[in-house]
Amino acid sequence: MSEVYGSIDLGGTYIKCAFGDAEGQLLHTETTPTDSHTGPEGVLGRMAALVRMIEAETDLKPLALGIGIPGLVNLREGSTRFLPNFPTQWRDVPVREILVPSLECPVYLLNDVRTATLGELTFGHGSDNCTMAFFSIGTGIGGGVVVDGKLRLGSLGAAGELGHYTILPDGPLCGCGNRGCLETLASGPALCAAGVRLVRSGLAPILHEIAGGDLTLVTPRTMAEAAAGGDKRVEEEILRAAHFLGIGVANVVTTLYPDLVVLGGGVVQIGDLLLKTVRETVEERIGMFPVDEIEIKLSRLGNNAGILGGIALAMKRGLLDD
Amino acid sequence: MSEVYGSIDLGGTYIKCAFGDAEGQLLHTETTPTDSHTGPEGVLGRMAALVRMIEAETDLKPLALGIGIPGLVNLREGSTRFLPNFPTQWRDVPVREILVPSLECPVYLLNDVRTATLGELTFGHGSDNCTMAFFSIGTGIGGGVVVDGKLRLGSLGAAGELGHYTILPDGPLCGCGNRGCLETLASGPALCAAGVRLVRSGLAPILHEIAGGDLTLVTPRTMAEAAAGGDKRVEEEILRAAHFLGIGVANVVTTLYPDLVVLGGGVVQIGDLLLKTVRETVEERIGMFPVDEIEIKLSRLGNNAGILGGIALAMKRGLLDD
Repeated sequence: MSEVYGSIDLGGTYIKCAFGDAEGQLLHTETTPTDSHTGPEGVLGRMAALVRMIEAETDLKPLALGIGIPGLVNLREGSTRFLPNFPTQWRDVPVREILVPSLECPVYLLNDVRTATLGELTFGHGSDNCTMAFFSIGTGIGGGVVVDGKLRLGSLGAAGELGHYTILPDGPLCGCGNRGCLETLASGPALCAAGVRLVRSGLAPILHEIAGGDLTLVTPRTMAEAAAGGDKRVEEEILRAAHFLGIGVANVVTTLYPDLVVLGGGVVQIGDLLLKTVRETVEERIGMFPVDEIEIKLSRLGNNAGILGGIALAMKRGLLDD
Repeated sequence: MSEVYGSIDLGGTYIKCAFGDAEGQLLHTETTPTDSHTGPEGVLGRMAALVRMIEAETDLKPLALGIGIPGLVNLREGSTRFLPNFPTQWRDVPVREILVPSLECPVYLLNDVRTATLGELTFGHGSDNCTMAFFSIGTGIGGGVVVDGKLRLGSLGAAGELGHYTILPDGPLCGCGNRGCLETLASGPALCAAGVRLVRSGLAPILHEIAGGDLTLVTPRTMAEAAAGGDKRVEEEILRAAHFLGIGVANVVTTLYPDLVVLGGGVVQIGDLLLKTVRETVEERIGMFPVDEIEIKLSRLGNNAGILGGIALAMKRGLLDD
């Protein structure tokens, strides 16, 4: 048995906890509702309980625990700073200080998408010394940037907030207060909004049929199905979102000329249509410069990028040595 | 006398050559017309003649020569690849191979704005291990990116082409083939085009008076004068360009959270109006994330960034050890 590490992915709806080894093999996973209305105390209590549950079931003790947090954190102190989708009482919660006494192992915090980037770097498409950008396209768009094998952190670990590139200066209002962020144009909700408009306008008959008139069933996945089934307008909206995503990818390529750009998160289940358009857009937008050697790929870890990132974070001692 | 290095800045109009020491003191500078119509042979001959002229006048021999090239180069081979504003015969010119035998010292090539970035890093606002972005705003907009004290190169040294961020996806056509590049919106020519339109439309009386009806005198500098003198529309155009530049700066901040962003090139002579708007735009576009600690400054080297960069390039052995 190689060394065992613990990982927690704190989401708005669920807390996911897993133990894994240094080769990225997940040994045991448990999930419980977040119930963020119970406050930091309740949520941190459930986190600790998950870890203890897995300890009991596996008879293993993790060497360290890495936690992906949906917001900005203070890496050195292991505390939260600003969690946009959690109540304000989540500001400056000393997570490490609270969890270490009961868990009796080091606890490290990092933004969730930077954590997923670390997962992809360590166990996915990444390689030693690679320069890589990771986009996670889901309810929001997050990102992470790796330069020469090292995750870029910047102040409060905010480097790599790639979903907040301004793509349309006068575009839709973003949760961050800006207009026209990539997130407002290519996230899951942005795509679904376009789908809902088409269904309501009677312009997406196949999507309407797939959703059976239930607008909650208008999702990136059903939209991809409808596009494949012949809904031209739905396909156009997917291409439009992918084009904006491609401009975001072009931004990071222009800045760094990475070896690799990885697209992850739920929305990439759309698959080839998305990837093809992103590649074409990069070529179209900066093809005068050498972009042939830059690989643009879908995440190798899929839904596990975040939880495996927590394992990597624990292994790398919270990046505090970097 | 400390060690002496040589530097050449190859421009579309002039070739500038200087010797300098490892402290960034320029010892002697000479300039001659580029006359690019005489082809690589003629231009390289004039380059070598400038070096020999300074050798004769100073009785000094440079340890190495760094050359800033307005385009993409092959760093390892010391040859040109693609020079957008020079005739096509400038493709794949083996500059090092041609110059080394007659100059009898190592010769290193790098893109001109990456060279200026190296100058700012070594002799200007930069510091060891800093993370820095440099924008040069002139006839075009070039850039350079330094991560942890190291200039990012990427394939063919194309990393840092910050003037080719797509800012308006459907904006004006750029020389690179894309639409809405930062360069089309905030370069000297972009600004002057807006000034000329205002003068011709009778909307910029003060600028009209300053230029005395001569449209070639509509420059970023006279526009700044006219704005200060009360031409509101001219001021608005300057603010608009500065706003787009601010979005470009926000892009690089989002990606890397650098310590420092430096603005150089002729257009920054506009001064405070530009700098203030860039800062406000960064705050407005990504102020939800921590940007307080990021310094945004005008170049400390001014017009000498490029030539001092050549000295730094020679000192750093063409970055070939990186």
